[in-house]
Amino acid sequence: MPDLSRLLAPRSVAIVGASPTPGSLGNSVLMNLERHGYAGAIHLINPKRDEIGGRPCLKSIADLPDGVDAAVLAIPGPAVLDAVRALADRGVGAAVIFAAGFAEGGEEGLAAQREVAEIARARGMVIEGPNCLGMTNFKAGVPLTFVETPPHPITGAGIGIVSQSGAMAVVLGTTLMAKELPITLTVSTGNEAASGVEDYVEHLLGDPDTRVIGMIVEQFRQPARFLKLAEAARAAGKTIVLLHPGTSSAARESAATHTGAMAGDYALMRAKVTRAGVVLVEGLEELGDVLDIAFRANPVAQGGTAVLTESGAFKALTLDLAERIGLPLPAMGDATAAAMRAAIPDFIPVSNPMDLTAQALVDPDLYRRTLEPLLADPAYAAVVLGIIQTDETTAARKFKPIIEAIRTLAPDKPVLFAGLDDGAVFDPGYVRDLRALGVPYFPTPDRAFRALAQLSRLAARDASRVSDAPVTIEVPAGVIPEYQAKELLAPLGIAFPAGGFARDAAEAQAIATRVGYPVAIKAQAAALSHKSDAGGVILNIADDAALAAAWNRLFANVAAYDAGIALDGAQVEKMGARGTELIIGAKSDPEWGPVILVGFGGVQAELLHDVRLLAPDLPPAAIAAELRQLKSGALLDGYRGSPALDVDAVATLVAALGRVLLGTPAIREIDLNPVVVYPNGQGVVALDALILAAD
Amino acid sequence: MPDLSRLLAPRSVAIVGASPTPGSLGNSVLMNLERHGYAGAIHLINPKRDEIGGRPCLKSIADLPDGVDAAVLAIPGPAVLDAVRALADRGVGAAVIFAAGFAEGGEEGLAAQREVAEIARARGMVIEGPNCLGMTNFKAGVPLTFVETPPHPITGAGIGIVSQSGAMAVVLGTTLMAKELPITLTVSTGNEAASGVEDYVEHLLGDPDTRVIGMIVEQFRQPARFLKLAEAARAAGKTIVLLHPGTSSAARESAATHTGAMAGDYALMRAKVTRAGVVLVEGLEELGDVLDIAFRANPVAQGGTAVLTESGAFKALTLDLAERIGLPLPAMGDATAAAMRAAIPDFIPVSNPMDLTAQALVDPDLYRRTLEPLLADPAYAAVVLGIIQTDETTAARKFKPIIEAIRTLAPDKPVLFAGLDDGAVFDPGYVRDLRALGVPYFPTPDRAFRALAQLSRLAARDASRVSDAPVTIEVPAGVIPEYQAKELLAPLGIAFPAGGFARDAAEAQAIATRVGYPVAIKAQAAALSHKSDAGGVILNIADDAALAAAWNRLFANVAAYDAGIALDGAQVEKMGARGTELIIGAKSDPEWGPVILVGFGGVQAELLHDVRLLAPDLPPAAIAAELRQLKSGALLDGYRGSPALDVDAVATLVAALGRVLLGTPAIREIDLNPVVVYPNGQGVVALDALILAAD
Repeated sequence: MPDLSRLLAPRSVAIVGASPTPGSLGNSVLMNLERHGYAGAIHLINPKRDEIGGRPCLKSIADLPDGVDAAVLAIPGPAVLDAVRALADRGVGAAVIFAAGFAEGGEEGLAAQREVAEIARARGMVIEGPNCLGMTNFKAGVPLTFVETPPHPITGAGIGIVSQSGAMAVVLGTTLMAKELPITLTVSTGNEAASGVEDYVEHLLGDPDTRVIGMIVEQFRQPARFLKLAEAARAAGKTIVLLHPGTSSAARESAATHTGAMAGDYALMRAKVTRAGVVLVEGLEELGDVLDIAFRANPVAQGGTAVLTESGAFKALTLDLAERIGLPLPAMGDATAAAMRAAIPDFIPVSNPMDLTAQALVDPDLYRRTLEPLLADPAYAAVVLGIIQTDETTAARKFKPIIEAIRTLAPDKPVLFAGLDDGAVFDPGYVRDLRALGVPYFPTPDRAFRALAQLSRLAARDASRVSDAPVTIEVPAGVIPEYQAKELLAPLGIAFPAGGFARDAAEAQAIATRVGYPVAIKAQAAALSHKSDAGGVILNIADDAALAAAWNRLFANVAAYDAGIALDGAQVEKMGARGTELIIGAKSDPEWGPVILVGFGGVQAELLHDVRLLAPDLPPAAIAAELRQLKSGALLDGYRGSPALDVDAVATLVAALGRVLLGTPAIREIDLNPVVVYPNGQGVVALDALILAAD
Repeated sequence: MPDLSRLLAPRSVAIVGASPTPGSLGNSVLMNLERHGYAGAIHLINPKRDEIGGRPCLKSIADLPDGVDAAVLAIPGPAVLDAVRALADRGVGAAVIFAAGFAEGGEEGLAAQREVAEIARARGMVIEGPNCLGMTNFKAGVPLTFVETPPHPITGAGIGIVSQSGAMAVVLGTTLMAKELPITLTVSTGNEAASGVEDYVEHLLGDPDTRVIGMIVEQFRQPARFLKLAEAARAAGKTIVLLHPGTSSAARESAATHTGAMAGDYALMRAKVTRAGVVLVEGLEELGDVLDIAFRANPVAQGGTAVLTESGAFKALTLDLAERIGLPLPAMGDATAAAMRAAIPDFIPVSNPMDLTAQALVDPDLYRRTLEPLLADPAYAAVVLGIIQTDETTAARKFKPIIEAIRTLAPDKPVLFAGLDDGAVFDPGYVRDLRALGVPYFPTPDRAFRALAQLSRLAARDASRVSDAPVTIEVPAGVIPEYQAKELLAPLGIAFPAGGFARDAAEAQAIATRVGYPVAIKAQAAALSHKSDAGGVILNIADDAALAAAWNRLFANVAAYDAGIALDGAQVEKMGARGTELIIGAKSDPEWGPVILVGFGGVQAELLHDVRLLAPDLPPAAIAAELRQLKSGALLDGYRGSPALDVDAVATLVAALGRVLLGTPAIREIDLNPVVVYPNGQGVVALDALILAAD
């Protein structure tokens, strides 16, 4: 692994393609370095100039002194490969490549990018890009970018930005600066010929001043490594907030034309990164807003949110929004309600959201008196102030006592300020004062609540893991048919119907006699993937005679369906009682690792996307909680008179499946469909089983 | 109906409770009138003062000259009733009542409010409030409010604001002014003792300068009248944008403590107002944003949206967002794609969203060349520019050519500008220039797309109505049991299973013989609302003997269930083939009128809220389109090999139901559950029927 600090905190910089022309890439990079007062050596390279702005120019890379830390390639794509080679020969530690037309530009570009990567690997060079906008280390005062970048002084902690898209890195930087948030480092990785977002995240985890990381990523090239880094970040108390374009099918198609990244399976990625403690946001607005709270406010603990506001209609709007986005606004407990009652005039009812009416205009201390019991109540993890700002005069009469109240009360939980009237004109000094007290300011309440809900969900997430050891089973490569899959899985605690595998009718009759009629028989062969379509399933067989007849019919059906399939035999199983059907399966992505899918059976589950993807190391209690999160989850606990179902048994089955997946990486897919769940205490039975293992 | 113009454009104003104390209600009203340079006569009433600020004071209302237009009551609640009486005696045309504690404050307050209303009715007075913040007529320069209200000059057209909540009226006004949008009139109606939101909307429909109306309403007191007004507004090309708090159950509970309004049935209200052409928004942010587009931009026609942007990652984010909010972004047709191809460099692929990369920085005319084919393509109803503003310098290099392009091209469809980097600092003059050209500016793209999607959905809405005449049937009051309901509905084109009503077993056998076995029998009595629970349904009866036995069992079951129920007899029906079950019902609200509910049968429909509420005058084609909008709508057209269902037959049935509801207002509810729909061409059969009629 090359030394990233030669790129990120270089003691000397070369600009290949330096230029005196304002607006040119080479000139813009130089201007930025001068703007930031870069203290290291700057080497300019331009074969046609002796000097630029009073600085001497070298004719070629070969003229560089030995061991310059970083070079910026402000040159066209076709010249990049030779330049990288020459830089390596001079012992340059890092190269920033702006040019496009590499992996995203067809076969030739891809080949050139691979060669750049190979040089980097062989010579221990760091490569940023190609197809990137460079990076800026605000702490060290090093801007290696052609985007005009003003200094944004930072003394203590800040936010790190890691983005594949250069444009999005710039956009996020602009927004964070407008929120007066400090940035330690912003880097755009582009095509990631050699170094990727994972490398920079690892670097930022080691930077004590980077407390929060904002990421914009279209494809992780090292998913498993990123997940480990995300878990390390969570352990270190550093929040990673990720924007990952590509939920829509159209976006996935469009990605191919961007930085050469093909989007992965979004749902699987989401399950994995959220499990690792990452906050996954939906858009740029939310990204900036969540970063604001994560960096500036006290940590959001698990719990509800209290709201102080000044309008009954807004109280109703807040309840509507909270229900839509799943932000709990619990009513006040008795003690808090009593304290609130004592703090407010009689004509104001106690509730959450708490509508103070316009009363604070005549009683400014009301803010402090009402905030105090909410901050003291451990049931509330956060407080949102929804305030009508109106104009200079009104705003002054509200901001001043609110700022004073927060200063006095010194909250240890997040307090957010949301202006209800977007665009109201008032002294921006109030917003700065709030921010200095750790109170993020939001121009609209919708944004405050949506961003808070993200961090509230993160806090509510169960990060615990099962302590049971993973289970390793021996799996043959390829498709493992039902009877073999059941033999492999049954010893692990996954219940199947009583029965067994029979090679002929006599064996079948013996099994049926043992388990009791009626039975079902199902044709077995690795090549037979759709048993039912082939007439390979016969149900409700009543006795020995019927079984003998059914056996012959089964073989005849399959032979008629596809003469090329030779059956191993048939699975004979006792017919079970009806119950509620679930679909339970697992998929193990070679990059991201395994996830388990659960949902209700039937076309509706698929049609309504009503499934949950679960981490394989989730403890049973967390699995049960996830099952109840299904849109139809209410069916599990008895709906309209139907009995409560054995959710614990489902959770135990899913946990067993998880142990197998964790211990047996060769498994690519497991399908147990349908799984029948019975009323509480009566368990769960998987009717089918199929395993697909890696070759 | 009293003359609203005496309130809204008074030639003379009295302030009851005038005061020299800054910040007092009476003083604030006077300050506002002076700030706006109110040209009419101002009468101050204060028993303790001879003059205030050089203006003479009257001792009491009785001293007022005859026929003052409007009085503002800046006095405490207990003094209001006497004051209103005295004002009526002096022939005052209107009173603004700020005080709270009326209908929302218990029995006494309610009685006082009713008395105020009665005086108003008897004397033809307009009452605004109580519990309101007054009104401001910006065109006439009349502010009758204690909220500090700067003049906001308006010369031509503007937006009208009608809100029950005074605070929300102020909030919306602040936001619209920040968007540099003109406001004709803003009024808060509070408790609506005498005049309600409907009155002010009617007034604004008659005001040629009010082109768009923004409303915040917690409860419509005259729903039917509002629907008529909304339809008139649509016919006049005036858009009404409505924010209606109260979707959540918690919000509905909370409403009782606000302006005395109990929220109605939200879903029914939504179905009705959207059918009438109202745009229903979810929050304050969206309300302001939709009003901005509706007022400023060209009308949004039916069609897709084209996007011009400057980042591949943002293109993917836009596709994600568009899919989430249901905004169609159709690909370019051949001609437009060819024109686009000719307008851009070779290395940029043609697509929608169109990612121009940073190319316009070196080729500023690119904006005009790429905007032109999108504006010319009738498949696109709107164009959104998603631009990275960055800083003063960069912004200047982008805004100038964009403004020039729009000026040159003079679009006849909406063009929206969305900055990608919220908070970027640049010359606000560019935003003003865009607005002057009819281009709304949005600080984040999320807001632009969400607001546009609202107006795009409005344009896509089918406003046509059935031309068939409503059908009036004679319905007895109360519960009409199945056999009678089927007799009433069958002649109207609603299909039921073959069969009929029998009073004894012999009659039943005759019917069964006529329609053919197997049959089902179902116990019939108005008092028996849950037949199945009572053992009152017996299926699959094979022959005469079984029918005789079933008949006796049926009567015995019901007698055992509830000896107080005397059966009229039983409905005998031929057993039909299985099919897909729908739920179809209707509800007629005495205020809002009728709606029809459709969805798929089973608990999931209820659990997943997967139902649509339809207007009863929807033509069959529009009904079919609504059915396909169900979350499980894909099941209708054949899903995973199942046959396409007879959607047209369902639409015909729903349309027939609609005609009955329109012609028979006495019907409160109709239930046809389940309704079985068969494959295409095989029709639909309602298995049950129940009608509830008004007493």
